[in-house]
Formats: sequence, C-alpha cells, structure tokens
Amino acid sequence: MAESKFAVLKTELATRAEIVRSYILSETAAFDLQPPELHHAATDYLKYGGKMLRPGVLLFSCAAVGGDEAIAIPAAAATELYHTWTLVHDDIIDQDAKRRGQPTVHEKYANWALNNSQLEVSEPEARHLGTAIGILAGDVQHGWAIRLMTHLFYQKQVKPELVLLLIREMETLVLNKLVSGETLDVVFSKSKVEVLSADQIMAMLWGKTGALYEFAGISGALLGLNSVDMNHPYVTGISTFMGRCGVAFQLQDDILGVVGDEKKLGKPVGSDLREGKKTIILYHCMEKATPTQKKLLLKTLGQPNLSTGEIEAVVELMYELGGIQYTRQLANDYLDQGLTALEVLPESRYKKLLRNWAEFLIEREY
Amino acid sequence: MAESKFAVLKTELATRAEIVRSYILSETAAFDLQPPELHHAATDYLKYGGKMLRPGVLLFSCAAVGGDEAIAIPAAAATELYHTWTLVHDDIIDQDAKRRGQPTVHEKYANWALNNSQLEVSEPEARHLGTAIGILAGDVQHGWAIRLMTHLFYQKQVKPELVLLLIREMETLVLNKLVSGETLDVVFSKSKVEVLSADQIMAMLWGKTGALYEFAGISGALLGLNSVDMNHPYVTGISTFMGRCGVAFQLQDDILGVVGDEKKLGKPVGSDLREGKKTIILYHCMEKATPTQKKLLLKTLGQPNLSTGEIEAVVELMYELGGIQYTRQLANDYLDQGLTALEVLPESRYKKLLRNWAEFLIEREY
Repeated sequence: MAESKFAVLKTELATRAEIVRSYILSETAAFDLQPPELHHAATDYLKYGGKMLRPGVLLFSCAAVGGDEAIAIPAAAATELYHTWTLVHDDIIDQDAKRRGQPTVHEKYANWALNNSQLEVSEPEARHLGTAIGILAGDVQHGWAIRLMTHLFYQKQVKPELVLLLIREMETLVLNKLVSGETLDVVFSKSKVEVLSADQIMAMLWGKTGALYEFAGISGALLGLNSVDMNHPYVTGISTFMGRCGVAFQLQDDILGVVGDEKKLGKPVGSDLREGKKTIILYHCMEKATPTQKKLLLKTLGQPNLSTGEIEAVVELMYELGGIQYTRQLANDYLDQGLTALEVLPESRYKKLLRNWAEFLIEREY
Repeated sequence: MAESKFAVLKTELATRAEIVRSYILSETAAFDLQPPELHHAATDYLKYGGKMLRPGVLLFSCAAVGGDEAIAIPAAAATELYHTWTLVHDDIIDQDAKRRGQPTVHEKYANWALNNSQLEVSEPEARHLGTAIGILAGDVQHGWAIRLMTHLFYQKQVKPELVLLLIREMETLVLNKLVSGETLDVVFSKSKVEVLSADQIMAMLWGKTGALYEFAGISGALLGLNSVDMNHPYVTGISTFMGRCGVAFQLQDDILGVVGDEKKLGKPVGSDLREGKKTIILYHCMEKATPTQKKLLLKTLGQPNLSTGEIEAVVELMYELGGIQYTRQLANDYLDQGLTALEVLPESRYKKLLRNWAEFLIEREY
C-alpha cells in the first residue's frame, strides 16, 4: 500500500509544482532573448514537467517554522531554476541525449541546426552549435534564478539583508559544492578505480545533491522566520535534515543503478556497471575483494557491451562482498540522522510532510 | 605622440587593475573547490593579466559623479569576473586555443587530462573533459561575481536595496544582452550572408560589448551617488556614453580584423575574412555590390586557405564598395554620441579620464 502512504504528499507537491512552474514561466516570458531558439532552449526543461521536489520542500520548510509559504515562492522558483541550469550543463558534460523522456537541450538544437535551411553546417558543426546553445541557455537560467531571488524584496517585501544573505549562500556555498561534485564525477568516471578514496566519493555525492537540498531547507526556514540567523536551531535542524536526505537519496540511486528495476529507474538494469560508475558500493567491494575478485571487477566494469549474464555475475559478487548491504545501511544511517535533526521542530502537518518526503525519497515509489 | 597622449590614462588604469586583481584573487583563494584543477581553471585568466578596462571605467564613473572609488571596488571586481566567465565560455564556443597568449581553459585541461597517469582517456575524451572543466569553471566564476557584489553590503556598507538593484540589472539586462550577442554571433557565423540584416548585426555588437560597459557606467555612477535612481541624469549620461563607446570599439575591431596590422591585433591580418565573420563592413558591401562582385565576396569569404593575394583583392573591393569607410564613420558617430552624452557631468579629472579612455578605445594604441 505504498501508494496511499504518499498520496497526500504527492498532492501537496503537485499543487506547489504547478504554482512554481507558472511563476517561473510568467516571469521569464518577458525577456527578449535573441535568437528565439535561445529563449526556447532556456525554458524547454521547465515545460517538460518534473516533480519539482526542491521547491516543494523549500515551501514546506518555510511553513514548518511558522512562516507564510506565499512569501517564499520566488525563492522556491529560483531554486528550481538553479537546479535546471545545472541539469542543462551536466547533460552536455555527460553527453546525455534524453532528459525526462525528451531530447536534451544540446541534442535538440544540434538537430535544429542540421534541419535549418538558413544555416550551412556539417554534422559536427551542428553538434557544436547545439552544445553552444546549451551552454548559453544554462548561463541565462543561472542569472534568471538570481533575478528571481531579488523578487523576494521587490514583490514580497522581504528585508533586503535577508535576500542578500540567501543570494550569497546560493552563489558560493551551494555553487562551489555543486560544481565540485559534478567535476569530481566527470573526472572520476575517467579515473582508475584504485586511485579513489571513500571520502572523495562522499564529497561528490554531497555536492551533487546534498548542497542544493540543504539550501532549500535553509532558505525556506530563514524566510519563514524572517531572520538572518543561520545558527537558529530550526535552521540548522532543517539544514542537516535536508543535506542528509539528499546524500541518502544519491546512495539509494547508486543501489538502484546496480539492482533496480528498469521501469522505476528509467534506465536499463546494470547501466551503472556498464558505465563503470564510481560508487561507494564499488569502493567497498574493492576493499574486501581477493586479488582474483578484484581482477574480475576491474575487467568487467566500464565495458559497454556486458551481457546480462556478466552483469548478474558482478551483482552477485557485489552482494557476496557486502558492498550493496553496506551502502544500503549507510543510506539508512543518513536518513536516520536527518530525521533526528528534524525533531527540533514543533509538530505540524508540514513537519509531517517533510518526514514523509524523506521516506518517499528513499523508497522511490513514484 | 600617441604614447604620451594616453600615458596618464594607462597609469591610472594599471593602478586600478592591480587593486582589483588582488581583491578578486584574495577573495576567491578561500573557496574549497575540488578537484584542485577546477580551482586553477577558475582563476587562470585572472592571472594571465589583461588590461581590466571595465573595472577601470566603473571606478572612474564612480569618482566622476563625486563618489569614493574605494566603496565601488567589489563592483569593479565583480564586473571583471563577470566578463571573465563569458570569455571562458565563449572560448569553448568559438573553439579558440589561445587567450592572452596562453592556452584557453578548455585547451589547457584537455592537455592536463591527456598527460595525467591516473586517468584513462583517449584524445577525444580528453578534449571533452577539457570542455567540461571549462564549462564548470565559467559557472563558478559567474557565481563568484555575484558574491563579490554582495560584498558591497557586507564590506562597504552600501545600502542593501542598491546592491540588490545592481545584482538584478547584472543578471538580467546585461546577461540577456551578452548571451544573446554571443548566440547571434555563433549562429551568424554559420548563416548564409543573404539572410542577415544590419539590425541583427548591430544587436550582436551591442550585446557583445555595449551591455557590460553600460553596466560598468551605471553601477559606478549609482554607487558614487549612493542612489537607486536609474533615471538620474548623471547615470543615464554615463550609461549612454559607455554603451556607445562599447559599440564603437566593436566596430573598430571589425575594421582592424580586415585592415589592421598583426602586431596590434594579436591575430593574422585577414583572419576575419578567412573565418567569414559577419560584419557591418560585409553587410554594407553586399548591399552595394554588383552581381559579379557579390559572387566574388561569397566565393572568397569563409575559406580558411585564402592566399595573401586573395585577401588583398577582397580588402581592395571592400574599400571600393565603401564598406570600410562606412563602418569607420559609424564608429565615429557612436563615439561622438557617447562623448556628447558625457557632457552632462561636471568637469573633473575623472571625466577627462573617461573621455581619454573613449579615444584610446577607438585608437587602440595599447
């Protein structure tokens, strides 16, 4: 009965996703970007849908400390747009062709260039033009996100010192962790397994998901309290909760990447193994493996043409070495630490929604 | 005696460049970016030198309206860093291998990846890794620039409403024009000459240089006046002055790209013709050309292997059709309009420096 357990949460998230999406699109409609393709490129992902979990939990956090969610809408919108520009740039970096079942920005505009009779481009030139438009569309979204943050002052009369504080946090603490996480990811994907440390892998996970969730919690709480005190116990409680849940989510993602079913995951079983993704699972297995087992892992991982039988053998070995169980336990520990930190808040339906969201994140029953 | 004419200006610019450079580097030194290569990539261009004209004129503008330059230093630094991220991304987009005589970011880290024994990469994978690091380094600089803007409040006690206004302008008006300018440039470079209009070419020039210079003027003036009034006559005067000079500079750049000498320009004579760059010169020539002349232009431009003789023939034709003279006149008109707008300011040595800078920009005697 997993469905009914998350039914209320899903409705609450969907309502907020709709509000935030129309807010962003009505704001950005006014900008005159040239050529028009650049404008489309900068709004495509928002129109593709998406669950908008970050804005949702930002608004819950605001209400959970006693604030008015309506005030925090520009921050929720900015956080989603901030997430979006990182997706557009990451898709170029990861050379992904699809996002939410639709073509990625760089892919879409490469095809646009190829089929445009006013342009004279070869196939590689069209690819490069698509990449250029992707880079620039992400850059535009980055700036728009910051503009939306300034609306907290212009439209919602939030005190300007608080708005500046949130902008500063977004553009350094969050940004540095996010970008470091993505850079580590791309460098690790080409690194020999032997040179990695568990610390580096955790830093990458933290950066890729924890940082922006943490910001969603902090900004929701500060706006709800109308305070610039980052050390307020509600703020640190929500911040810890969010960061830990974000990392737990990424760990869970790595487990699903090895043993998950295709339908839930949206990518073929074992694709992380074929890609040779550097995970805590793999790191733990390498630590425990005998020389022969190590050789098998090194020989198999990162081979794009692994058969189903070979994948099954590796998964079995990963269970045998305890890598999957270890990672699952780690994810649960993070989740527990997060839930404990949340206890500082008074009981409310918003606190309940946050708790529910954390469980939902780790169960992935969407 | 061009040297002595600009001697004072050069000294004044050099002093400010040094202050701004150390300010940026001391601020960014504190950030923990991983891996360390990302940190280097995000600071390399600042260490390469560069004249830092934008911070210079921002500070002159502040003083020219009676303000204290020291207050505006974070804004000057932010404007340079903002300019820098656009260079890093543009270099990827334009596939340039050199910047200020040194390897561009994407080029440098492609070579790093190739020569790193902990990585296992093919040549194309190393290229892609270099591009990834370039994209992410530019993203980091973008955020850092905004953080430096918030320092106006945290370090210089500028009123927070003014800081928010400047951040909003930077992240929308300036950004949208800058990015549109670069997108038009890259799309035009692959477009048939016949489909372009003079308006589109001017919009591109405006976006690529006018917008950020305009912002430098506006922000310097508003900080000097400690005012949020964008319609103050000093502010609109300096803003017009800066924008016009920026466009005049780009027009002049296009002229030098056709007839300039290699030493001044830092690139081979005729390289704009070999690239087939879409300029006002070319647009004007196409308007005036006979069908035979048009055919010659279309046949020659954009051919990477043009001989010196062929280049000379095209340049001669461009003179004959008046394209170069027309563009030179246009640049002078823009410069004059800019200088006229500046007249609203009271006389001062800073106003003189601004006037001097405008002449310097168009004479390019550096």
